[in-house]
Amino acid sequence: MSVTSKEVARIAGVSQPTVSRALLGRPGVSEETRKKVMAAAAALGYVTSEIGRSLSTRATRKIGVVVSDLTNPYYPHLLGPLHDELDRLGYRMVVLAETTDTTTSLDRLLGHTVDGVVLTTTLIGSPLPHELARHSIPFVYLSRKVDEPKADSCVVDNIGGAELVGCKLLDLGHQRIGAIFGPERTSTSRDREAGFRGALADAGFALPSRMVRRGTYDYETGRTLMLELLDEHPRPTAVFCANDVLALGGYNAAFARGVAVPEQLTVIGFDDISMASWDVFQLTTVRHDLGTMTQNAGRLLAERIHEPDRPVRCLVTPAELVPRRTHAPCPISLDPGVSS
Amino acid sequence: MSVTSKEVARIAGVSQPTVSRALLGRPGVSEETRKKVMAAAAALGYVTSEIGRSLSTRATRKIGVVVSDLTNPYYPHLLGPLHDELDRLGYRMVVLAETTDTTTSLDRLLGHTVDGVVLTTTLIGSPLPHELARHSIPFVYLSRKVDEPKADSCVVDNIGGAELVGCKLLDLGHQRIGAIFGPERTSTSRDREAGFRGALADAGFALPSRMVRRGTYDYETGRTLMLELLDEHPRPTAVFCANDVLALGGYNAAFARGVAVPEQLTVIGFDDISMASWDVFQLTTVRHDLGTMTQNAGRLLAERIHEPDRPVRCLVTPAELVPRRTHAPCPISLDPGVSS
Repeated sequence: MSVTSKEVARIAGVSQPTVSRALLGRPGVSEETRKKVMAAAAALGYVTSEIGRSLSTRATRKIGVVVSDLTNPYYPHLLGPLHDELDRLGYRMVVLAETTDTTTSLDRLLGHTVDGVVLTTTLIGSPLPHELARHSIPFVYLSRKVDEPKADSCVVDNIGGAELVGCKLLDLGHQRIGAIFGPERTSTSRDREAGFRGALADAGFALPSRMVRRGTYDYETGRTLMLELLDEHPRPTAVFCANDVLALGGYNAAFARGVAVPEQLTVIGFDDISMASWDVFQLTTVRHDLGTMTQNAGRLLAERIHEPDRPVRCLVTPAELVPRRTHAPCPISLDPGVSS
Repeated sequence: MSVTSKEVARIAGVSQPTVSRALLGRPGVSEETRKKVMAAAAALGYVTSEIGRSLSTRATRKIGVVVSDLTNPYYPHLLGPLHDELDRLGYRMVVLAETTDTTTSLDRLLGHTVDGVVLTTTLIGSPLPHELARHSIPFVYLSRKVDEPKADSCVVDNIGGAELVGCKLLDLGHQRIGAIFGPERTSTSRDREAGFRGALADAGFALPSRMVRRGTYDYETGRTLMLELLDEHPRPTAVFCANDVLALGGYNAAFARGVAVPEQLTVIGFDDISMASWDVFQLTTVRHDLGTMTQNAGRLLAERIHEPDRPVRCLVTPAELVPRRTHAPCPISLDPGVSS
C-alpha cells in the first residue's frame, strides 16, 4: 500500500540516497534532479511522515520565522519570497508572531520544533537572539539585526540609502527639513537616521529636534506625526520618513490638511513597497531588492544548519533613490502657505 | 535540571492533570487558570517537547492555514486574529502558501503534521477539501467555501452586503452601472455577484455584459479593468468592485485618467480593509467583522477536532454599507465627461 523511496528513485531514474537528499533539501542535488524527484514523489503519492523523519534525523525540516506585525504591508512581501526560498531548500515555514508576551514565542522556538530561525523584527536588546544562541539554535537576522549576539545577517544598505535622501533634499534647496524616524530599538531606523543626519551634517546642516518625530512603523503613526510637524511654525518644507508606511501616513496627513505635495511639501519614504507606486501617491522613495535579500537569508540559514562553525557573514543589499512625484525644489521661503 | 509538570502544578496551585490540560489547550480549564499555568510554566522555564508530546497524544497541536496570496492586504488582517485565536485555544499556526503546485501543499497537510486545517482561499473545484475529507483531517472553510465536500464554514453575508450596494446605486439614480467581479471560482465573488445582480434585477435592471469585468483579487487587475470600463462609450457612472483591493485599483485608474471620484464616477468596494479609510481614498464599502468571523473559525475547528461527528455548521457574519466619500448621485446624463 505505502510507497517507498526506492520506488520514487526508480521512477525518477536516480539513486535512493539522491531521493532522500532531494526531498530533505540537502545540498549536492541539482535543481533539475530535485524537480524530477519531487514530480515522481507527487505522482506516486509518496508522503514522508515528518514525525518519523524527525526522530530518525533529529531534524524537523521546519524553519521558524519571527515577525511582530503581520499587518505591516512590508512583511507579507517578505514572507512570500521567504516561503518560496525555504520551500526550494526543502524547509517548511512556520510563522511565529512575536507578541508582547515574548515567553510564548521563546517556548515555541525552544520546544525543538524548528531547525533554525529567521528573525525579521528583532528589537535591539531583545532576549530572543540570546536565547537562541544559548540553546545553539541556528538563526539569521533578516532586514533588522542587532550587534550582539553575532549571527549571519542580510540587511539593506540603510545608511547609504538614507544618505541619498539627505543629499537629494539639500540639492533641492530645502532648509526646513524634518524627519519621521522609526522605533529607536530597530537597526533599520537607527541606520537610516544615522545616514540621513550624516549626509546633512556633511553639508554643515543639523536637524533641529522640533523637526524630528519618532514612532512605530505604521500608517497611523506616520499620519499623526506628520500632522504634528505640519503644526510647527514655521513648518518643514521637506520630510524624510524612515519607511514607506510612515510616508504614506504622512502623505495622507498632508492631504487631510490641504497641504499640496510636492508643491508645498516634499515627502520621501524608504523601501519602495508596491503602494508607493500607486497613481495617487507616486511616492519618491528608496528601493532595495527584497527578494534577493530574503533568498540570501534562507540560503545563509540552510548553510549555517549544515555547517554550524563557519564564520559569520553579513550580506548587504544596495539601495537606490527612486524619484517619483512627491519631491520638488524648496518653495519660495515667503510663500504664506509655508511660513504660516 | 529539567522542570517537570509537577513543579509547574505546585507553583500554579493546581493539579498536575490541570497543567497538562491547560498547556495542551484542552477544554475544561478556565481562562484564569490557563493564564496561571502559563505564567508558572514560563517562570520555571518549563518547555514541553512537541515531538514527544505528539507521539504520546497522536496530536501535533498545530493547525495548518492555507492561503494563496500573502500580499493581498486582506489576508494579513485575517492571519493576525486567527493566530491569536488559535494561540488562545492552544494551537500553533502553520501558514501554508497554496501555490500553483498544489501537490506540495497536499503532501504537507497529509504528512500528519497538523491536527486540522483552515482553508481561506479555496477555489470551487479545488481537490484540497476532498483530499482532507478522504483522509479524515478536520477542516473549516474561512471566508470562502465550496458546496462539496460539506464542512464547517464561517463566511460573510456576501449576498446581503452586495444587495446593499446595488440598492444604493439605484437610489443614487445611476443607470450606467458597471461591475468588476472577482475570480469565478471563489464563493465570495460568486455570492457578491449574485447579490448585486439580484438587487438590480428586483428593480427591473439588468447589467449589460460590456459593463462587466472579472479578474483576480489584486490591485493591478482592478486598475486595468477599470481603465477598460472607462474606455467604454458611454462609460459607466458607477462601478461596484467585488473587494476593496479591486476598488483601490479602480480608484487609482480613475485618478490616472483624470476622472473625478465621486463627481464623475462612483466607486464602491467590499471588505473595509484599513486602506479604505485612508484620507486620499475614503472609500465607500461594505464592512463585516473579520475578527469575529476568524475567531468563530478557530472555535469551530477546535470543536470539530474534539467531536468529529457533530453536525456541520455554517456561521454567517452580517455585512453593512459604510458610506464614505466615493459615491454620489448620478451626474447629469449630458455631462460631456460622462458621455465621452
